[in-house]
Amino acid sequence: MILGRVIGTVWSTKKDENLTGAKFLIVRELSLDYSEKSNFVIAVDSVGAGEGEVVLVATGSSARQTTFTKNKPIDAVIMGIVDRLDVPETKE
Amino acid sequence: MILGRVIGTVWSTKKDENLTGAKFLIVRELSLDYSEKSNFVIAVDSVGAGEGEVVLVATGSSARQTTFTKNKPIDAVIMGIVDRLDVPETKE
Amino acid sequence: MILGRVIGTVWSTKKDENLTGAKFLIVRELSLDYSEKSNFVIAVDSVGAGEGEVVLVATGSSARQTTFTKNKPIDAVIMGIVDRLDVPETKE
Amino acid sequence: MILGRVIGTVWSTKKDENLTGAKFLIVRELSLDYSEKSNFVIAVDSVGAGEGEVVLVATGSSARQTTFTKNKPIDAVIMGIVDRLDVPETKE
Amino acid sequence: MILGRVIGTVWSTKKDENLTGAKFLIVRELSLDYSEKSNFVIAVDSVGAGEGEVVLVATGSSARQTTFTKNKPIDAVIMGIVDRLDVPETKE
Repeated sequence: MILGRVIGTVWSTKKDENLTGAKFLIVRELSLDYSEKSNFVIAVDSVGAGEGEVVLVATGSSARQTTFTKNKPIDAVIMGIVDRLDVPETKE
Repeated sequence: MILGRVIGTVWSTKKDENLTGAKFLIVRELSLDYSEKSNFVIAVDSVGAGEGEVVLVATGSSARQTTFTKNKPIDAVIMGIVDRLDVPETKE
Repeated sequence: MILGRVIGTVWSTKKDENLTGAKFLIVRELSLDYSEKSNFVIAVDSVGAGEGEVVLVATGSSARQTTFTKNKPIDAVIMGIVDRLDVPETKE
Repeated sequence: MILGRVIGTVWSTKKDENLTGAKFLIVRELSLDYSEKSNFVIAVDSVGAGEGEVVLVATGSSARQTTFTKNKPIDAVIMGIVDRLDVPETKE
Repeated sequence: MILGRVIGTVWSTKKDENLTGAKFLIVRELSLDYSEKSNFVIAVDSVGAGEGEVVLVATGSSARQTTFTKNKPIDAVIMGIVDRLDVPETKE
């Protein structure tokens, strides 16, 4: 999964008939220190993510394994909202 | 999904038998400020996208989840035309 | 799909039992002005593409959606030969 | 598969209903000399991997081919713990 | 498919139950002049590839289309051993 932050919304009226009601969010990829990377992905929300929230995004066919996204032309889904990262820096 | 702009068309007469009628569009990837990136993808249109329009492209097996693209050797489909991006820059 | 040019052939005698008869072509990725990029992909031919021809390549599971490639360990297929690109440069 | 090292954990309370009990680990990609690369992936653990361990990660639809991950919106799974790499440097 | 050379082996005792007997090989990607690239992939062998051999690797769901890899959490498989590359440099 990709670690990212929701930074905006894409509005699309004319879209595939199966996509009615889909909420397209813009997710900027994050480093482990929460700094933003340059790349982003447009993902459909399946967990009620809001702007500014840190999220997990599943891509590819796995993006279609939620109740809403099943059998739809969607290749990225927000399937989790991140509470916290635990990254103990020293492992020696 | 990828954010892109339709910048042209690919003409192909000799193609897989299942692809008769497919419209191959050239989609240049876009940044969030609509500036064009260097990479592009050839995608099949499923929503009537025209040249110059900003679109969403789904890739991989998800590209085959539209009525037209089902069971076809197509790995990228335009499944939405973008009306507007909402990207509030300041989140502090 | 990827835009590329067939630049050679891979010969493989010892291969998966399902791949008998498969023709593996080397496809160099192209820019829209037909200049060659550094990356390439090995793809199975399904449309009778010959050396030097400009082609479209579908990758991933979509590469298995042709009569010949179905259910085979193939992740890239040439599914169209390109006649022409139409890329009107000025859109203002 | 990707070679990586488990360097941390992602905590997520609000997630897809099918993901209850999933353990999201942060896996930093490794070079063959075990030096860490800059990129990382969030993967679900299916083999009891612990922090600091070197692991193999399968991505895409293949990540859903374990008992736990089946039919879930998961695109990366730890499916093996690495004991040792054998890389004889000289092949002449 | 990816062109690569087998340069080593990954040993893994603790792995997904379906992976018993899987042979994980380290495959370094190659350029068309057989020079090694920096990236590598861990792939399961399905054709009896040995160290030093030049091979083709199929990735993604296509990696599960061999008798051994079917329904297993494997995203890369060696499905061919390369005898020879034919790359006529001049096409004018």
